Amino acid sequence: MVYVSSVSETKIEDVHMDGVYDTKIQWLIDESAGAKNFAMRRFVLAQDGIINLHTHDWEHEVFVLEGKGELLSEDGNKPVGPGSVAFVEPGIPHGFKNTGDTEFVFICLIPIKEGD
Amino acid sequence: MVYVSSVSETKIEDVHMDGVYDTKIQWLIDESAGAKNFAMRRFVLAQDGIINLHTHDWEHEVFVLEGKGELLSEDGNKPVGPGSVAFVEPGIPHGFKNTGDTEFVFICLIPIKEGD
Repeated sequence: MVYVSSVSETKIEDVHMDGVYDTKIQWLIDESAGAKNFAMRRFVLAQDGIINLHTHDWEHEVFVLEGKGELLSEDGNKPVGPGSVAFVEPGIPHGFKNTGDTEFVFICLIPIKEGD
Repeated sequence: MVYVSSVSETKIEDVHMDGVYDTKIQWLIDESAGAKNFAMRRFVLAQDGIINLHTHDWEHEVFVLEGKGELLSEDGNKPVGPGSVAFVEPGIPHGFKNTGDTEFVFICLIPIKEGD
């Protein structure tokens, strides 16, 4: 199967998690599209939006689409913008912060865990 | 480890494969960044660039960044543009074609195969 969709056709939801503020998520590609190995999400951080430092046992692959932000890490915060990419290893504290005056938007991929 | 890079810092190479014309690739995130499960590539098809219908036993997750194109499939060609996403299951014939008058640019993720 070839599944085609778009940002504009995908539901956008507020993220309700401790340490996460003014952040929305779209699940662009997940099990419902037929994906078994990894899922593609799009995050939109409003001005002053932040996903504070947190840790989990899966990795992230990130591509920044719009705006100006920082990837938060224990080694210091790394400025990112359109065309920036990031790989966060499993178990490494990380976060994201909008440091601009427009939305900060990025794609973030994660593995799909068996049994979930 | 948190690895940060960008499109502008990544080598861009011509794709030399049968059925592929006027197409360049960048490996944005792969094993050299620490990734073990999936790799992120960026494709740039020049005007009239095409990746003809082909088949392989791994999936694609695609996010279109720029330009105007088509995802080629046996069910017909599907028009895509910025913000379009696609999931191509393993074993399904697919391709990509630039149908606009600017570059057609997309991100395409694939699994990293053990032993490669």
